[in-house]
Formats: sequence, structure tokens, C-alpha cells
Amino acid sequence: MTVDIQAANRTAVTKMQEAHPRLVGIAQARDVIPGSHDRLFLHAGPPLTWDQMPGPMRGAVIGALIFEGLAADSRAATALVESGELEFAPCHDHQAVGPMAGLISPSMAVYVVEDTVSGTRAFSGINEGYGRVLRYGAYQEDVQTRLAFLNREFADTLHQALTDMEGLDLKALIAESLHMGDEAHNRSRAGGLLFLRALAAPIAAAAATPARARDILGFLADNALASLNPVMAACKIMTLAGHGVEGSTLITTMARNGFEFGIRVSGLGDRWFTAPAATPDGLYFPGFDAEHANPDIGDSTITETAGVGAFAMAAAPAIVTFVSGTARLAWESTHEMYEICLAEHAHFTIPALDFRGTPTGIDLQKVVETGMTPRINTGIAHREAGMGQIGAGLVRPGLEVFTDAFLAFAQEYGFAD
Amino acid sequence: MTVDIQAANRTAVTKMQEAHPRLVGIAQARDVIPGSHDRLFLHAGPPLTWDQMPGPMRGAVIGALIFEGLAADSRAATALVESGELEFAPCHDHQAVGPMAGLISPSMAVYVVEDTVSGTRAFSGINEGYGRVLRYGAYQEDVQTRLAFLNREFADTLHQALTDMEGLDLKALIAESLHMGDEAHNRSRAGGLLFLRALAAPIAAAAATPARARDILGFLADNALASLNPVMAACKIMTLAGHGVEGSTLITTMARNGFEFGIRVSGLGDRWFTAPAATPDGLYFPGFDAEHANPDIGDSTITETAGVGAFAMAAAPAIVTFVSGTARLAWESTHEMYEICLAEHAHFTIPALDFRGTPTGIDLQKVVETGMTPRINTGIAHREAGMGQIGAGLVRPGLEVFTDAFLAFAQEYGFAD
Repeated sequence: MTVDIQAANRTAVTKMQEAHPRLVGIAQARDVIPGSHDRLFLHAGPPLTWDQMPGPMRGAVIGALIFEGLAADSRAATALVESGELEFAPCHDHQAVGPMAGLISPSMAVYVVEDTVSGTRAFSGINEGYGRVLRYGAYQEDVQTRLAFLNREFADTLHQALTDMEGLDLKALIAESLHMGDEAHNRSRAGGLLFLRALAAPIAAAAATPARARDILGFLADNALASLNPVMAACKIMTLAGHGVEGSTLITTMARNGFEFGIRVSGLGDRWFTAPAATPDGLYFPGFDAEHANPDIGDSTITETAGVGAFAMAAAPAIVTFVSGTARLAWESTHEMYEICLAEHAHFTIPALDFRGTPTGIDLQKVVETGMTPRINTGIAHREAGMGQIGAGLVRPGLEVFTDAFLAFAQEYGFAD
Repeated sequence: MTVDIQAANRTAVTKMQEAHPRLVGIAQARDVIPGSHDRLFLHAGPPLTWDQMPGPMRGAVIGALIFEGLAADSRAATALVESGELEFAPCHDHQAVGPMAGLISPSMAVYVVEDTVSGTRAFSGINEGYGRVLRYGAYQEDVQTRLAFLNREFADTLHQALTDMEGLDLKALIAESLHMGDEAHNRSRAGGLLFLRALAAPIAAAAATPARARDILGFLADNALASLNPVMAACKIMTLAGHGVEGSTLITTMARNGFEFGIRVSGLGDRWFTAPAATPDGLYFPGFDAEHANPDIGDSTITETAGVGAFAMAAAPAIVTFVSGTARLAWESTHEMYEICLAEHAHFTIPALDFRGTPTGIDLQKVVETGMTPRINTGIAHREAGMGQIGAGLVRPGLEVFTDAFLAFAQEYGFAD
């Protein structure tokens, strides 16, 4: 069997760029996520067991069980998990993505993002903002109160607003945010404001009362990560479009669960390749340092996989105050990534580089040949459940997982020894 | 008499940077603008007569008279002007600023901006958005309808919202917008979104009805120049803080009326120095070219005078799609301006230059010594009344006006021949 890898990669990376994700509404996970059922709990990264789950993910599982009304406290939640009655699975295996712990439980509201080209759908939960939040493993009273607000009043109003406005173009939002100093992952300030701009008037019209409109607009205005979750689902749509092309070495998934880092490859189906997760280098909030840091966690690397995030860092020099480094580092991050990518994005461009497209479509073959692994921007979670975010930084996975995948590719396509 | 120019300039440029403008409310011009009376019409730039007024300014005067109910149409308006009953004066002579024609009539709602350091106030009208607008000399029915909405429902609601939120920090808004790809003059997208972010929830709470909240939020969301007018008033506050320092060669006003370009100097009181206005180079909307362009007009050069606008263009490479040029030009614009400025701004910084402060405080002496005049980003108006904006571009005033002012400075301080 011969396979034209170059042609396959051209097809895959073109499909990835031509996908056109729109946010069409909000729904309950159990009603829309393929394969969802009342005991299915989705999490970030590749598959793992309860025993392997790090503190932040365990905390998020406990919080999700309390939110579902299946447990009253952490002890009851732990007992329920250990009874074996629950099923855990990666978000990525169900067309979903979640930042940090990435927990999606059946009753949670999820953004519904649709590809106008293929009709494919992808899903993500609602971003909770800063401080003590489920995605960093906090599960206490205040977390539950916020989750209740987001999953009821907020979700109902936004769904109505999105219906009234006939959806929101997330591809255009990402493109514009790159022209406003975002890299669309760790720095999503402009994205959040563009999200607010699109939704403000429809929310005012859709809200049950002016007080509710005020609360929802206030929540969106205060959350500079408000657009991150729908943007991640948009990136999932784009990477799905490039997935499953026979003979393609395009990497279509990079995700971490706080225990392992995993990738999937367009031409190798849904098989995960994994290796231990690295710990980010970065800037810590006062009172914390690297000793408190959990290894890298979350599906938000879907942004880098789709050609933004650290790959678009030259568009976002202000991010260095948050993740460390200098303007030069931001410039270099983008330029280095051109060396392992298949294309320059046709729609996501960087004004400071005279509108050059972002490096897009990580080529497994180029990673292995150059020994240069993808750069990732990331938040840093405390390693204990319930503590929350302690910093943000930069991380690069080791080469091992890419080498493993490349060997598997060679075997699959019959050009290994 | 000896004067320490260097010390005077240090004082002036420090005061300019330390001023702290806040938007505290909206009021009728006649109630708040010093010296306002029922027949006073303020305009952009240095003083000029009706005979000298270019098309766009004449159109704006006609529109303002119709808005005031003093004339039914352009013929009646022209007759009223020619009767000599009206008084015209520069906005700048009344602590106000206005973009393009810059018309402020007694019944118009104006933003009230206050310096938390000195208590000084400055004023600007409400930005009308794009298309046929008064500031470009349009005065027809649709212009009047929009003016009515902005001066009543919009102004009332925003004033209530601003009161409830105890004002809005415009200095922080400008600083943040520079980190989001604005130069805070021609590119004010991020500023507009930050303005919307601050006001969205308070507007939802303050609006008389949800439909009104929707209309106002929709208007703000659609107007990427929504923050320009309050930002201009903020820049007026800052330049006023640096004005009137004995012996200082700091330029504290640059303004155009479509006929002449004028400047004022910190150590030379309220005297205007003027020369014919130049015509901008730039990009034209389809169907228009330089032959249709009016000479440079508007007070929005107050942004460059305060250290942003073209001076901060390295922060805003995406602007070149609008005003012409390349990313390199944006970088050079900022770097060249360091050569004629007294300081690097302590609070307005450029991420791509590793957070170097913007070139701030144009030194008359350096302009004359280097022969390098300030760079200005600007909109381009059609030379006929009522036609509106036809493009945007770059403009540099000639050296003459600076030489004149420098001679006057030398005479004033006794070191001329």
C-alpha cells in the first residue's frame, strides 16, 4: 500500500482551515452530547482512572457529583466513585472539550457549536471565571452557587439570545481577537469583549428581568475568559474537520489530564498516544511556587492544535505579563512553530507580521524530524483539590509521545521495517 | 529674565502624565461648559469665520441649528448665520474637544470628564457612529433622528449608569486599549469594547425598559468609535494639566478646522499659531479619491498631543488596513516620535516594545531643531457638506506653524535677537 502523505496532509490542513464554527445555542449535556447518559462524566485529556486522577480533577469530580445531586459531600462522592457505578471518559471522545479538569456531567449546560460546512457539532461547558472554580478542582458552596446560576439563569438567557440572533460566528471572533492582542487561549480578553459585544443587546432583550440582564452582563464583563470555552469548541470543530484523513500526519488532538499528555493523529483514528504530563514554567500568584503546581492539565491545547494559542503568540505580546517572558519570546514562539506546521492559516492572521497567517496544523513528521515539540500556553493548577489556579505559564511536552505515534503511523501504513 | 526651559518642560510633561481623567456623567452643554450661552456654537480647530468654514463644518453648523430648533432647513440656517446673531468659538477655548467638525451646540449632551488630581473638567459630544453623521457635515433627517436619540434616551440612560457606577476611569481604559491593539484615535475598537464592558450591566439596570437597554447596548456595540469622544476629553484633561507652565515649550494643543491647522504652547498661554491645513494621505472608500478630500479637520489630534494616536501606532499594527502602510510603518511612526517628545509615558505602554512608554509631550523646540513635525492619524471628510467620511489616513502638518510659535516663544522669554 502506498500513501501520499503530502497530499493527505494538504487535504487535512485545508479542511481544518475551511471549517466554519458557529455558536448556535446552549443545551444540557445529556440532551446533545453523543453517547451521554446519566452516569457518564467527561473529563479533560486522555483516559485515566480515579486512582490516576490528580487533585484538581478529583475535586472537580466531587463538585460535579454534588452539582448533580448524586452526593452531599466529598466523602459520599468518593464512595460513589469507588462503587464503580460511574463511567469516566475523555471529553474528546464525545466531541467535547473542557479547560483544566474539564468536567462535564449530564445536567451541565454546554455551548453547542456547529460547523456550517459539515454540520458537525462540538461542545464545551460554561466558563466560571476566576477564583475558586470547578475546573481547578474547587467544589465548595460558593462554587455550587455559581454553577447553579450559570446552568440555569445564565444558560437560559444566553440560549434565548443566541436563538434570537441566529448564532454567533466564532471563526470571525477568533480572527478579530488576534488583531486585538489575544492569542485566543491564555489571553482571551478581546475575545471575551467581542463575545460581550455580540451578546449584550440580545441579552438585554432576552433576560426575564432587568436585574437578571444586569447580573448576566456583569458576569460576562468581569470574566476575561468568557469566550474561551466556546472558542475551544470552535477549535474542536476545526480539528475534527482535519481528522480521519487517511495517510495524514496532522496532529488533531493534544490534551492533558494532569497525569498524562496525549495526542491523536488524523490518519490513525481515535487511538491516543500518551506520556507523563510535564509541569509548566511560568509566573505564580503570590504565595505559590512550582512545588505547589499540578502537572499540565486541560483540553485547552485544542487552541494550539488549531493554530492559535502559543502558536499565535506574536499577536499577543501583552501576554508575557501573565505567562512570563518578553515580547521577543512571543515573536519567537510563533516563528518556531512555523517549522513544525503544515500551513499558514488562511483566516487567522497576525497584524505585526504584516498579516501573515498563524502557524497551523502540527505535522507529526516535522515534530519528530526536528525534535521540536509544540509550545503550549497554559494555566497552572494547585496540585490539591479545591485550591484553584496558582499561576500561568508555558509548557512543552516531551518528544516521546510523538515518536511513539510516528512509529505507529509507520506500522499502520506499512513503511516501517 | 532667565527661564529654565528644561525644568519647565519636566514639570509640564509630568503634570500631563499624572492627570487622571474620569468620566463622571453626561450633561447639556449649556449647563456645564464654561462660557456657554444660547447662541454659542463651538467647533473644532482654531478660530475661523463662516466664510472660511469648509463644506463639512458648514453642514455641521446647519445640522446643529436644525437640531436646536433655530432653523428649519439649510437656507434658514445660512440666513441666521449671516445675520451675525450667532457666536462661533473653538471647542478648545471652552475646555471641550470634538472630532471632525466638532460642533457642540447649547442643547447637545456632552460627556463630562473630570481630573481626579486637579478637579479640572473637559467635555465632548456623543459619538454618532458611522455613515452620514453631523461631524462629517451631514444634517438631514436621519442625522437628526439619531441626534435626538443620542441626546435624550441615550444620554439620560448613560448618565444614570455613570452615576450608579460612580464614574469610569478613562486613563485605565486608554492604557488597556493600547495593550489590545488600539492607538486610541483612529483605531478605538478595544476602547469601544472596554467602554461597553464597563457600561453594559449598569445600562441594563438603568434603562427605562428592556427595549431601550437593547437599543443603547446595540448602538454602543455597533460603534467602534464609541469611546473616541470621552477619550478625547480625557486627553484634553491631560494636556490642560501640562498647559500654562511658564517657560515650557510643551505643545498642549494641536487642532484643525478644515481650513487651518493650529497649535498652542504651554508657556505661551491661549494664543493660537496657525497655518493652512494639509490634506491627508490615506485609503479611500470605493468611489472616492484625494480630489474629494477636505483638508484635515477635527480636534482628535488631542490624542497625539497627549501621547497616543499616531504616536502609539506601534501598539496598533492592524490599523494599517484602515489608514494605509505596513506593520513597519506603524513601528516607525512611534519610534520617530520619540525624537520630538519630552518623555516616555509612565502609564501608557506598548507591549510589543516590551512595555516602553509611548512618546509623550511634543517639544516645540525639538520639532524646530529636527524639522520633524508630529505624525497624525485621521479620518478624511468629503469636501462638500453632507457627504460624510470618504477614507482615513496619515497627515503631517508643515513646519511653518512650529517655527512661528518658536519665534514667539523666543520673544516672550527674551532670548530672541
